[in-house]
Formats: sequence, C-alpha cells, structure tokens
Amino acid sequence: MEIKDPIHQSLEIDEREIPVLDSAAFQRLRLIKQLGFAEFAFPGATHNRYLHSLGVLHLSGLAFESIFRDYQFSSSDRRKNLKQVLRLGALLHDIGHGPLSHTTEEVMPSIKSLHVEAYKYRIFNFDENEKASHEDYSIKLVTDSSLTKILREQFPDIDPYYIACLIDKSLKSKDDFFIDGGLDFRNVLSQIVSSELDVDRMDYLERDAYFCGTSYGKFERSWLLSSLTYHIKDDKVNLALDRRALYTFDDFLLSRHHMYLMVYFHHKSIIYEEMLTRFLTSPDCKYFLPSEIEDYVKFNDYSLYEHLAQVDNPWARQITERRPYKMLFELHSVEETKRPEEIKKALGAEGIDVILSSSRARLSKYHSPNPHEKSLPIYVVDHLDAREQPIPIEQCTEIFLKYEETRRIERLYVSPEKYPLARKILVDRKL
Amino acid sequence: MEIKDPIHQSLEIDEREIPVLDSAAFQRLRLIKQLGFAEFAFPGATHNRYLHSLGVLHLSGLAFESIFRDYQFSSSDRRKNLKQVLRLGALLHDIGHGPLSHTTEEVMPSIKSLHVEAYKYRIFNFDENEKASHEDYSIKLVTDSSLTKILREQFPDIDPYYIACLIDKSLKSKDDFFIDGGLDFRNVLSQIVSSELDVDRMDYLERDAYFCGTSYGKFERSWLLSSLTYHIKDDKVNLALDRRALYTFDDFLLSRHHMYLMVYFHHKSIIYEEMLTRFLTSPDCKYFLPSEIEDYVKFNDYSLYEHLAQVDNPWARQITERRPYKMLFELHSVEETKRPEEIKKALGAEGIDVILSSSRARLSKYHSPNPHEKSLPIYVVDHLDAREQPIPIEQCTEIFLKYEETRRIERLYVSPEKYPLARKILVDRKL
Amino acid sequence: MEIKDPIHQSLEIDEREIPVLDSAAFQRLRLIKQLGFAEFAFPGATHNRYLHSLGVLHLSGLAFESIFRDYQFSSSDRRKNLKQVLRLGALLHDIGHGPLSHTTEEVMPSIKSLHVEAYKYRIFNFDENEKASHEDYSIKLVTDSSLTKILREQFPDIDPYYIACLIDKSLKSKDDFFIDGGLDFRNVLSQIVSSELDVDRMDYLERDAYFCGTSYGKFERSWLLSSLTYHIKDDKVNLALDRRALYTFDDFLLSRHHMYLMVYFHHKSIIYEEMLTRFLTSPDCKYFLPSEIEDYVKFNDYSLYEHLAQVDNPWARQITERRPYKMLFELHSVEETKRPEEIKKALGAEGIDVILSSSRARLSKYHSPNPHEKSLPIYVVDHLDAREQPIPIEQCTEIFLKYEETRRIERLYVSPEKYPLARKILVDRKL
Amino acid sequence: MEIKDPIHQSLEIDEREIPVLDSAAFQRLRLIKQLGFAEFAFPGATHNRYLHSLGVLHLSGLAFESIFRDYQFSSSDRRKNLKQVLRLGALLHDIGHGPLSHTTEEVMPSIKSLHVEAYKYRIFNFDENEKASHEDYSIKLVTDSSLTKILREQFPDIDPYYIACLIDKSLKSKDDFFIDGGLDFRNVLSQIVSSELDVDRMDYLERDAYFCGTSYGKFERSWLLSSLTYHIKDDKVNLALDRRALYTFDDFLLSRHHMYLMVYFHHKSIIYEEMLTRFLTSPDCKYFLPSEIEDYVKFNDYSLYEHLAQVDNPWARQITERRPYKMLFELHSVEETKRPEEIKKALGAEGIDVILSSSRARLSKYHSPNPHEKSLPIYVVDHLDAREQPIPIEQCTEIFLKYEETRRIERLYVSPEKYPLARKILVDRKL
Repeated sequence: MEIKDPIHQSLEIDEREIPVLDSAAFQRLRLIKQLGFAEFAFPGATHNRYLHSLGVLHLSGLAFESIFRDYQFSSSDRRKNLKQVLRLGALLHDIGHGPLSHTTEEVMPSIKSLHVEAYKYRIFNFDENEKASHEDYSIKLVTDSSLTKILREQFPDIDPYYIACLIDKSLKSKDDFFIDGGLDFRNVLSQIVSSELDVDRMDYLERDAYFCGTSYGKFERSWLLSSLTYHIKDDKVNLALDRRALYTFDDFLLSRHHMYLMVYFHHKSIIYEEMLTRFLTSPDCKYFLPSEIEDYVKFNDYSLYEHLAQVDNPWARQITERRPYKMLFELHSVEETKRPEEIKKALGAEGIDVILSSSRARLSKYHSPNPHEKSLPIYVVDHLDAREQPIPIEQCTEIFLKYEETRRIERLYVSPEKYPLARKILVDRKL
Repeated sequence: MEIKDPIHQSLEIDEREIPVLDSAAFQRLRLIKQLGFAEFAFPGATHNRYLHSLGVLHLSGLAFESIFRDYQFSSSDRRKNLKQVLRLGALLHDIGHGPLSHTTEEVMPSIKSLHVEAYKYRIFNFDENEKASHEDYSIKLVTDSSLTKILREQFPDIDPYYIACLIDKSLKSKDDFFIDGGLDFRNVLSQIVSSELDVDRMDYLERDAYFCGTSYGKFERSWLLSSLTYHIKDDKVNLALDRRALYTFDDFLLSRHHMYLMVYFHHKSIIYEEMLTRFLTSPDCKYFLPSEIEDYVKFNDYSLYEHLAQVDNPWARQITERRPYKMLFELHSVEETKRPEEIKKALGAEGIDVILSSSRARLSKYHSPNPHEKSLPIYVVDHLDAREQPIPIEQCTEIFLKYEETRRIERLYVSPEKYPLARKILVDRKL
Repeated sequence: MEIKDPIHQSLEIDEREIPVLDSAAFQRLRLIKQLGFAEFAFPGATHNRYLHSLGVLHLSGLAFESIFRDYQFSSSDRRKNLKQVLRLGALLHDIGHGPLSHTTEEVMPSIKSLHVEAYKYRIFNFDENEKASHEDYSIKLVTDSSLTKILREQFPDIDPYYIACLIDKSLKSKDDFFIDGGLDFRNVLSQIVSSELDVDRMDYLERDAYFCGTSYGKFERSWLLSSLTYHIKDDKVNLALDRRALYTFDDFLLSRHHMYLMVYFHHKSIIYEEMLTRFLTSPDCKYFLPSEIEDYVKFNDYSLYEHLAQVDNPWARQITERRPYKMLFELHSVEETKRPEEIKKALGAEGIDVILSSSRARLSKYHSPNPHEKSLPIYVVDHLDAREQPIPIEQCTEIFLKYEETRRIERLYVSPEKYPLARKILVDRKL
Repeated sequence: MEIKDPIHQSLEIDEREIPVLDSAAFQRLRLIKQLGFAEFAFPGATHNRYLHSLGVLHLSGLAFESIFRDYQFSSSDRRKNLKQVLRLGALLHDIGHGPLSHTTEEVMPSIKSLHVEAYKYRIFNFDENEKASHEDYSIKLVTDSSLTKILREQFPDIDPYYIACLIDKSLKSKDDFFIDGGLDFRNVLSQIVSSELDVDRMDYLERDAYFCGTSYGKFERSWLLSSLTYHIKDDKVNLALDRRALYTFDDFLLSRHHMYLMVYFHHKSIIYEEMLTRFLTSPDCKYFLPSEIEDYVKFNDYSLYEHLAQVDNPWARQITERRPYKMLFELHSVEETKRPEEIKKALGAEGIDVILSSSRARLSKYHSPNPHEKSLPIYVVDHLDAREQPIPIEQCTEIFLKYEETRRIERLYVSPEKYPLARKILVDRKL
C-alpha cells in the first residue's frame, strides 16, 4: 500500500504493517498534533504524529539500506528480519505520546501504576514511584496491550519486546535476537531510531519546516542518508558517518537548534503551554490521564480541547477563547540573570499577575551526564585518509564545543488588559 | 501584523483587521478542516479554514492592486475603502461553514429560523422553508451577530451589509456605496471573491495541493494575477483577463477539475462522507446544528468528532474506529449507466449491505442555468490586436465546450467483512 | 557514483556507465542547452541536455522497476541485462542533438553522407538523400563511432545495435535479444524511451518547468510511475497504465501541451529561431554541420555563438547583440486564416520587413498518420472491474478527441526601429 | 516589464532600466556563469550572472521598502531618487566580472591601464601598478564607458559616480547627493549592496542552492527582509536589524559558510580552477584580458572555452576534454599542517605530478583588519527592551566568536593515470 506524503512523496507500507497502522493505538496519533500549540504562531502547523510516524518508518528503511548497502548478512531472511524490527521501532517510537504536548505529562500517573512487565529487564534501577512519561506508555503499548496482540499475529518471528528495545536503550537484550554472524546489531538499529543522527529528527525537522512554512529545518537529507555507514568495534555494529558529510552533520544539528529557537520555543506557543500548565495544576482540575492502557488510547487533542471548552476554570477558558497573555519582555542569554524575576516582583507589587516562562535550548545532549546516552558513539569514517581510524564524531567536529552552552530564553507575559500599564512601568522605571 | 504561511510566506494583516481575526466566529475556523475527511486519503491534509481564509484575504488585496494598478479613483480614501470591503468579503466568504464538510448541511435548520434581516433586500424570491446552507450562516454572521458589532467598531465607514453583498450576489446594493466616478465597482469586487477566476480557488487549489502533497492543483498564480484587468461596460466595472494569460486560465480550470477528480472525490474520503450521512439520517441521531447564531459558533470538527465518539450508533462507531466500508467497484463515465444499481441489487439479494456513492464533476458552472451566476461575464482584453473588442471569456477559449459534460463517478462499497464474498460474486458472475 | 540533481536529488550511476558519461560525445551535451533560445524569455532556462539525459536514465530505471515489480524473468541476469539496455537507450536517446535547437537541422548534410550501417535493417524504405536529422546522428554515434567502442568494452553482452533499436523503432530486431521466456520485451522498452508516456518527457517537463520557474510542466510523477504496468498481447509485452491513474495521464498530456503553448513557443524565443533560420539560409552563411561523426562532436552551442559573433551577417549580428525583431501581432486559432499574410503584405508595401512565424501545437501525435508510431498501443488495466479487458488508452480517455485539433500561433515581427510605424499602420487601418 | 525568475517569481523592471539591461555590457552577463566550474560538481549550476544581477536589483528594492516603510523623506521624489540609485548599484554591482571565475583575474592588466577617472576621489591611497580586479572594471564600466552614456540618458538626475559610490566604499561623496533632511543615507544604501546582510548574498545563496539542488543555502529570507530597519548615529543612517531576527541572522551566516564548504569549494570545481590557473600561467598562454573597456565586454565564458578548445596547451586540452586530475587526499583543519606538502614531496620524488590546492573559509570578514570594512557597523534594535540602546551586531551574537577561525581545506590531486600508483604509495607508507 502507498500513502501519499508531502515530504517523501510516496510511503510504501508492507501488507503485514497495515493492521498495525489500523490499530486504535496508532490511529489515535491522527488526533495528536505534532507540534501542539505551535499552530498559534504558525497556522500551517496542524500536522499530526500519525504522518510523522509513517515518515520515520520510511526513513528507517532507507537508512538501513544505505548503511548495509554492501553488507552480507548470514541470510536474506535475517536481513529482512532486522530491517523489519527497525521499521516497527521507528513506526512506534512515539506511540505513547500524550495529548497536545509534553505539558500533559503533568497529569500522568506513577510509572508503577502502568505495570510495565518489560521493566524488569532494565539495565539500571529507577524509581517506579516517579510520574510516568510518554515513553513509559510507549513501552507498555508495544509490549502489553491490544496492539501487542496485533504485532504478534503479524510478525510471529519478532518478539514485541525487541521493538521496545529499540525505543528504550535501558532494556536488556534477553537472547541473541540482534546477533548475526557473531556481531551485535542492536547499537546501530537503536541509533537509527534515536541518536544525534536518528531518522526521527530527520523526518520532523523537514516536516515541521514544511508545515510551518519556514526554512530553518531544511538540511541535506539525501546526502546525509547516503553517507551513513557502520563501524564494528568489540563485535558491536555502530552507526557511522562518512567524513565527506561532516559539515552536513553540523548543518543538520544547527538546523535543529534554530528550529528550537525560532519555532518550537516561539513565544506564542509557549504562553499556551504555560496557561495549560496553570490549568492542569489548578486545584479544581479534573483532567487526569489514566494508567489503564486501553483507556489511555481514548485521550487525544480533541478530547482535551473539548474538556477545556466545557469546564469553568479561567485558564481553560482563556485557552478556548484564544485570549492568551501577551509577551511584555524577553531576554536571551547564556548566563543566569535575575532581571526577569525582579521585573516580575516589581509588577506583582503593582497587582499585575505575571507569567514567567523559561526555555532552555542546547545544541546536543551528546555530552550529557546521562550514562546510557553516552554509551553509543557515532563514528566518523574517512575513506581517503590512509592513516585515520574511525573515531567518535565529537572528536571530529568542533560543533559541540562551539555550542556547548545552554541558551536561556526568559519571558514575561501579562494579561492583555494589564499590558499597557505593565509596559508603562517597564519603560518609566527602565526595568 | 505578519502571519507566517507556507503558501504566501508572509500575510500582512492590518491593525483594524486583527479584532475580526480574534473574534470567536473567526477563530472557530481553526477547528474546521479545509478538506473534511480528505486526511484519510491524504494524511497531510489537516489544514484548516482559518489559514485558507487569511490566504484569500491576502490574494484579494493582490488582485485589487493588479487590476487597478494604473486606475485613478476619485480619492485615495475611496480606493482604500473599496479595497477594504473587498478584503473583508474575501476574509469572511466562508465564515459560516459547518463542521467537517458540506455533509453536515443535512442537519441544518430552515433558512427562516435564522432570521436573516438582510434577506429582505434579495433581488429574487426564494423559499424560506428550505434548509439553510453554510452561506446563510455566513450572511447572518456578517450582518447580525457579535461579529457584526466588531466590524462596525473597526470599520465605521463600511456597513457590514456591503461585505455581505460581496459574498451573496443576490443582495441588492442599497445606495451608492460601490459607485465611484459614476462607475459601479460591485461586479468586479464580487468576481474577485467568487467567479471562475476568484481568489478563493486561487488560494485553495495551491494550498490543498501543498498539504495533500499532490501536483494537480498547481498553476501559474503570479502570471494569472498580473494578467487581471477590468473592462467597463454600461457603467459597470467587470473583471477581465489579458489574452496573454488565456492558456493559463485553461490550465487553472483544468487544475481544479483534476483536483476534484483525484483529490476531492477520492474514494477514501467519499466513504467517510457516506457513513456520516448514514449517521446524520439515522432515526436515533441527536446531532443538530442550532439556528441561534452564537450557539452555532460553538459547533466545529472537534465537537462533532467527540459526539461521534460518545454515541452508540454503528455508523458513528465505524467513523470513530476508522473502519470504513471498502471500495468494491468503481465506474467513471459521462453517460448514465444502470450497472452500479444492478450490482447493488444482486449483492443485496445475497444479504450484503452496499453503499452506492455517486459523485458528479463539471469543469465549470459558467454555463449553468442559474441566472445570477450568468450575469457577471469575465472579459478578455487583447492589447496587441487593433481590431478586437473585449468579449466574454467563454467566447475566447474552447475549454468550456471541450469539458461541458458532467463526469460521473459511481462507486460501490461493502463492509470489510463482506468484501471477499462480494468480490467473489462480482468475479464469478462477471457483474 | 552519485550525481546531484535538483529534480531527482541524487542520480545513481553504475560503474560501467561512467566511461560512457565521460566520452566526448556525451560530455558535449553539457554545451548544448536543453531549451535553446528559451533563456531570452525565461532567463533561468540555462540547463543543458547533459543533465536531462542523466535524468532520463534515472527515470528509465524507476519505470522498469515499477512495471516489473512482481515479474519473474527467466534469470536475474536477464532482468539486469534488459534493464541495462533500457538505461543506455534512455541515456543516449538524444546524443546526436545539433547545436542550440532543431533549427540547425537546416544545415545538416544528407542522411546518405553519414553512412549509417544500421539502416540496412530498417523495416521500411526511406529516402537517403533527405537531410539528416539529429536522430540519424544519434544512431550513428551509438552504432558506429568512438562511443560505440566504449559501449562494447563496458557492456560486452549488449550489442550497441540494440540500444539503437530502443531509440529508432524502425530498426528490425536481428535476433532474440529482447526475448525472454517466449515473450518479446522490445515494445515496452521502446515505449519507456519514447511514447505518450515516456520517461523523456517525464523528465523534461518537470525539469524545464523548474529552470524556467513556471508551474505548467508540473504533474504527478510518482503516481504515474507507480501506476505503470504491462500487458501481454500476441507474445509481446506492451506498456500499460493502471486505470486509477487515467486522469493523471490526462493531466500529464495537458501539462506538456501548456508547456508548448506558454514556454516552448514563447514569442521571445521564437523570434531568435527565426533570425537564426534567416542566417543559416543566407547565401553568405558558412556554417555547416559535418557528416564525419567525430567532427560533428565538436559542434555545440558555444562554437555556434562564437561563429555568430565573428561573422558579418546582419542576422548573426542581431542575435549576438540581442536586438531581436519585436512582436507586432499575434493570432491563436484552430482554423486557417489569411489575416497575418495580409498584414504582412500591407506592411511590406510600406517598406517594412516583416518576419511571419507560424507555430503548430497538437496535444498528441497518437492519432498521427505515421504508421510505425501507431503500432505500439499503451493499454489501460482496470483491476477493480471484473468485466473489463485491457484496451488501448485512446479508447479510455476522451482527451485525444477533446484536443485533436492543431492549434496555430501566427506572429508578425518587425525591427524595433520600424515598430512604431508598423503599429500605427495596424491601428489606423484596423488590419 | 516583468521577467520570470524561479527564485523571486516575477521581477518588475522599470521602463528606464530596460536600456541598461539591453546594453552590451549587461547582456554580457548572460555569458558568464554565476558559479564558473561548479557545474562539474553540480550539473544544474548553469545559471548566469545576468539573472543573479536582476535578482539583486529586485531584493534591493524590497530591502529599501522594508527599512523605510514608515520613514518620511523630505519629498517623494527624493525617496524615489535614493531608491533608484540603490537599484542601479545593486544591478551593476558585479558588471565587471571576468570570464568564468576569479581565476581569470590572473590575466588582468594593471589598474593604471584602465584609466579610472573616478579613482581620484578615493579616500585612501593604493598602488595603481597592481593588477586590476573585477571591481575596477565595474567602476570603469559604470563611470566611463558606453554604459555610462546610457545611464546618463535614462537617469539624468543620478550621476553614475554615485552608483559607483555604492559599489566601492572607498569613493568619496563629492556633494550632498546622499543627504536628505540633514541625514546621510550613503551608509545604509552601501550596506544593502554590500555588507554581512547585503542583498547580493541574499540572492546568490538561495539561487545557487536552487540551481545546484542543495539545501545548504536556504534561509528565512522574508523574515530577514522584514526585520531590516535603520539606526541613526552622528547624522548617518546605518543598516540595522530587529533583535527578533538575530538567530535568523546566525542561520543566514551559517548557510553561507556551509555553501562555501560544501558547494563553492567542492573538490571537482577546485581542480578545474587549478588547471585553468596552470594554463593561464603557462609561458605559451596567449589569453589576456584587455584594458580597453569596450573590448573587455567581448570577453566571456564562451570565448574563453573556445580559446581553450583551440590552443595546444596540455592544461587547456584537459579542461576541454574534461579529464581533470583526481583527488587523492583531503585534509580539513583549523591549524596549519605540513602533511600535504610532505605527501606532495614524497610523490614528486616518485615522478608523480601533484597539484596541491588550498582553500580558506571564514564565516565573516567582519573582524577583518581592513579598516573601511570595519567602519560600517550593522546595529541591532530591540523594541521590547526598555533599557537597551542599539548596539553593533557583533556585540549581540556570539556567532563571530564561535566561528572566528579560518578553516583550511588542503587537497592533493594527481592525473587519473598516476592515481593508482599514488594511492598505493599513500597507503603503503601511511603518508
């Protein structure tokens, strides 16, 4: 079956994948916007996670074919099998996403309440009393839900647990599923799904740019894809990049960075997220996400908007009636500053309610303290240089060093009614 | 204020227009998809009527500037005034659109129940007991609602009735509002909003093609716009086209025709419309559109989908669960045929429920029997030819003759469960 | 090897094809503009036949894979072999093109003087004393030149004669090269290279539109390609189209028709062709194309422009100095008319030199009287209809009937100096 | 007059500008490719400086309108006048460009031999015995050639010297031409033509990316243009940018940087430039650019290629026959290294001729030691911040610091015949 897509033209779906697409869990993604409130800044951005997930599926296949173009697996069946688990991992990488945006993770229950069996195979401990995130729902949906049944029927040779392994790097490989010819392919498959060079962002950058109508997210996709390769180290197959595409990689990282700064953190969508947070944390808020997985599937943007339209909470009403607080002040910097707090205090003293919003953007989480993120290096391979051995990408490009700082965006918003007064105070006192 | 748009890059909104955009009636268009169910065939088609309406506003200004580039109105204020009423007519041309698609017009109340005062100035009689259409709601919203109040405040020099005049050609001009220098400009302004060369379709063809990811709707917009001009006849100013763009006009008409055949009438969206019709005409259906205009504004795609998700009706459930009937048979022709009816009967005799859907596509309604459509000819002007006088466009191009027939698309759908049996009967009996 | 292309992103070239690309005969196409003088109307149209030919190569491979996606050839080697001959036929289909445009065919020698050995296998007689066309040079280059040697070295299993067979339908198959499993594949391969649905025009329409910056040439390429299939009749494999893409086919034909009318026949390029014709037919013209094939390869746009820059002929000088005659009058019609001739005569009587140019556009040569064009029907296959058998495409769409007429464009040009006088006469006398 | 352009759709040319476009000097730009040899790496890159110059003209007008959208000049005539001189400066900024690329500056005569009268008004001294550059020819063409005559006729109110002032910052303003209302507008007009934010690169980045088919050059043009403004300091009007577009500015600079690294410095075009240099510096080379300006106009890419095709020099022949040296080794770094020199020496010792090519890329010349470049700061204006005063852009963004280093690309090329041997030596000796 072919599905028409403005980004990749035609998406080829395998017969066995169709029941997965048709499942309630996956169809639900049609009702979850890819960029949540971004449509208030970029009205074209009404696209949903359904089409994005299909795009990721598509690109994961292209990445696989590019990386292993000349590689001989032990059999063509093994090749197909590993490619298929990758496609499913790519397709379902975000299946558990909550309504509208990450903001609704505020009202998720504890991880424990989800009863994710697969978590007993995690390689490190974690606190099950913590609030669940959309990833916990993803693992639950893949490994223990009505979708799991469909996956087992269509792909009897692929345990859904292994799909989950590509979504969650902390799950242990239980047997030799990812081994072929003595080599372990899990690293590279994981990295295609999620890494600094993953197909998730290859899809969403271009797609978000297309629907928003901006140029920031554009990068040289075909060159990047065709420059993907692999590097074997300690019997593990890792993702690698041909050195010829190293500037393309820089460009790709910067595209994403600029999308964050100019699109994802646009002040007009940020204020809606702040107002939603105020609603969700109001004492009278009755909106909660359920731990029962088949119930969860019924929660989506549409039902959340309808909930907001029907309750009496002032923040819900302001969202529904599109009467957002207005941006009064904005500060971009790489250093901490007390100025926003001080302005807020000064205005508060005059009886003006101020929403202070802080956004943090970093180019990369590559140097993050999170240990399991760090464990999967991407290598750079130079075919022309007779001396060089493949080395980790962060040793080849200075981009991580150049952009290691965290960029802070501090904003103050006030109600439209108070805006003229607040503005006057700001100017008069040179706050 | 600028609004970012993937089609026109940047849309310039005048300060006085912003409160109109911010009105509940206009913001509601964010919640009404431009193409209703088309996203089931083209998943990118999630765009809404809000952005389309802004695009039409934008193009109407460009068309005005192109047509009157060298024209001297009696004063620059009159020029601004006529341009402004045009922009508002363009912006609000579809403000009354019902949820999802024209299918919901099925559950609209009578025209009479809307109490449209403006209709007493209609140039011909009509039956007020007929069901209202989305156009009746548009006229009501413009001339007699909370939106009317906003229009009056922002544009004291433009009676909202005159905006309505550009949306509904059957409304009489009450005074000399459209007259300047002894010439009547209503024709050309009306034609920019609605005619074979209107900016509505200039926007939606390109926009729908963009979001669907197809090429059919593409045409040479900048050439067409810059070839627009006017022709004065009997003291009336009419829309005209420079002869140099006549093939571009053909191409534009054919673009739309092919969009109808390949996109708007796609079998996957048609079946959803048929299922919605079955729901709306079910005896147990409780979904009705209100005649009270401020209530009507609360009805949108989201609330309709939520309604469908909560009722027990089988058609509502099939829509909600995305389990459409499957296309069994399709016939395209320009002649009437009994074959679809016969197959339906044969399958019915075997206990198979069949949905028969008929779509009709015509290139143009230019030669339609509707008298007031006919009354506004578009002229063709040839600057190179010393002999020629401007003549109506249908005398200059053969495209209307070539495509005067009505194209019929007949389709039969059955439930997925019955599909194999139905297929077998079809093949075995060569139906 | 990959070659970057704005149309198809990345063109994959096989190792064995590289020496063909590197040959003098093929590199020469870099110096021949795809659209000749069109850059005087569309300054972006500086693209050359080199990149177009690579695009056709690329599309021919995609078409082959689409048509035979589920077909089992007798061996994978036969599959590769037939695909390879097709790719070469596509790559070299225009290798013999003369400088600038078809206008230079005016100064080609007789067919006889080219000594094309392959022509003794032609299925019908033709007059060898006639002037050669670019196609004769193509056949010569493929079958009897230094390029032939390269082809033989790289592809020992493909007689270059068979590449020629795909370019010239009148060449007899000498043995069973195109036969596999008892079926003859020559028809379908020929049709991919040249027919109403060939990859030549699939490439040039989109490419020309891109470089000119127009929308006319856009069509739904991916849908058309994926709807290609085959139909076997009398042991011959013919090109076929799935019925679902029939409107796409109409749209494709009309795209091309509108490109002819609006781009290829633009009055600003036509006048340059007319002036070049006047130069080439001047008694003092010393510019001739040689019959010796290795000499011919040295003739290109650059050397022609340099020739024009150096001779003393007035038409050559006007081309060089970009002082074209100016269009005075233009008439589009489907009927013959004497008006242009009469105007020309009247102006001539006043001592004004007039160039009268006639262009003829037809949608299709499908119904042409040329017998061997007619012999290769494209079939339409309807998978949904249990009754229908594949039938020739002209019986499935009315497009050929709708557009069977020949559209005539008659233009009169005069020198810029005489233009005001000529214009005055035209207007005064209402000519 | 409108000219069709794939980048800006339609370029509006004023009646008085047409004779400038039609001049021999300007038409010559049709015969000079924008990217010289880049078509050997990106075959779509056949676009010329003619269309680019028209694009710069177009953007200069948009920039002027954006910057001065609310500004009241002393009269509308002054406004028109200043806008017109800007458009002409933009149109003619590169009119003196030599054939093919900067490489041909090698064979330019001394500045003195050009007799540029305007240079007596230069603000600093320079050595007239130095070799001329394309800029010297530009100033000559504008101020003292047959083109000057046309400029004077069409624009009697604009001394061509003032057009030259916008191309060459070192020319003194002789009177109050750029003064209006006591303010000097030369800075901002100069900066629109040439600065870190000029319309030259706004046009070429997008255009080159389009014709090459890459994504690197894409940036948010409409946002950047609409964020342009001015800042008055010491009675001089300077170019300024709204702070909201500061990341867009970063993105714009990085776009250009990546175009240099991936496109302009592509190894396949660099080797052609090296071979051309070898030809031009050969003792037997007879190709020189003339100092007589009307002769110079006859030199273009076509005549250079024809010259190369006709001489006997081995480097000329290799260029003509497209047999470039092949890249053996490549090193990117920000530090100096001796490795390329050492490899060259080692291979030379084995009788292998090596071309060593060094390319240097810097993000910006903003911090360059060139004093008159430094004198024109671009300011950043923050409308939201009550405290901030406009400050120079290099104090607002860290991009210049992040990318202050010079990136070196060192490459070694050898003949195709020697390549295998050279490769072997490299690998065997781990050079």
